[in-house]
Amino acid sequence: MLPEALQSVIDTLGRLPGVGARTAERYAYFLLKSDPHISQQISASLSDFHSSIKTCPVTFALINSDQEHSPLYSDPSRDKSTILVVEEPLDVLAIERTHGYKGTYHVLGGVISPIDGIGPDQLKIRELIKRITDDKAKEVIIATNASVEGESTAIFLQRQLKDADLDVKVTRLARGIPIGVDLEYADQITLTHALEGRQVI
Amino acid sequence: MLPEALQSVIDTLGRLPGVGARTAERYAYFLLKSDPHISQQISASLSDFHSSIKTCPVTFALINSDQEHSPLYSDPSRDKSTILVVEEPLDVLAIERTHGYKGTYHVLGGVISPIDGIGPDQLKIRELIKRITDDKAKEVIIATNASVEGESTAIFLQRQLKDADLDVKVTRLARGIPIGVDLEYADQITLTHALEGRQVI
Repeated sequence: MLPEALQSVIDTLGRLPGVGARTAERYAYFLLKSDPHISQQISASLSDFHSSIKTCPVTFALINSDQEHSPLYSDPSRDKSTILVVEEPLDVLAIERTHGYKGTYHVLGGVISPIDGIGPDQLKIRELIKRITDDKAKEVIIATNASVEGESTAIFLQRQLKDADLDVKVTRLARGIPIGVDLEYADQITLTHALEGRQVI
Repeated sequence: MLPEALQSVIDTLGRLPGVGARTAERYAYFLLKSDPHISQQISASLSDFHSSIKTCPVTFALINSDQEHSPLYSDPSRDKSTILVVEEPLDVLAIERTHGYKGTYHVLGGVISPIDGIGPDQLKIRELIKRITDDKAKEVIIATNASVEGESTAIFLQRQLKDADLDVKVTRLARGIPIGVDLEYADQITLTHALEGRQVI
């Protein structure tokens, strides 16, 4: 019913996560009505971007394929004695946006999730332990997500680091009430964490 | 902070309607983790699709640039004496999905919206009137959206057709309670329409 070229755009955009047929139709029709330049820019950016990206061999953050290490590691202003451990490469962005962290990162590459067949061996835990020794790290900040898998991975990691008998302080991001949320809307677990982690003012 | 190629994908996908930075990041990271084939397919479908699409000179539906008319018009099984008038080309899809309509379509190309600077002259109303005469149409079904602009356009169109003194029946899609919606959740205007349009069973 639709022109083949338009149907093809709808079908391919429909492969994006969370994009159903109606959303894909809306995207495609928007692009059709817009300057062709926009479609061409999307097309050009997507045509071969995998080959321009690789992972840093030390931090496992995403880097340009012509870079040796992540600039967030090789930059001499970054404090190599502190390593913040995240699940995924984009989590690095979230922390960097705070402009409050000057240490380095370590991307685990996921979380332990038996249901998805992901065990500890598929995460960059061995590499983290090696790096703690190599860089003489003093603190490892575990910043996995507050999901069930994120929490289990954090606990597993904590034990691994303890067993490895490294001279390193292991910390976690504080759990508590986010800014802008009223007490009555905070869930029970968050409130419990907030109480346990209460601070002297 | 991110590889340039990835940032470029995030920036270009962020130009899609309703896609903010976080959604664009999610799309880009999904594509990066997926088979490069998916990105290449999206890229290929978007690279030059505008040139393969044009509008039908009679119905103003979208067609392949090598087609003369919309197949939904030229197909002899379609009843040319009934013309269903919609706002946008994708509305044709919604009606076709019902598999219950065998007439033809006429795409207005928008709605009258003074705030967006769209007057009646920018819509394909003159073309509709000419077509009603040419095709000796017996019924025009107005199927604009139930928005303020859609309703005003329907009323305007109805008057224009009346003024043109054409021997054509003008109808509108029924307004009423949609399937699966409880009476208590239906809004007042919908209920009023449902009452007014009540049918003998």
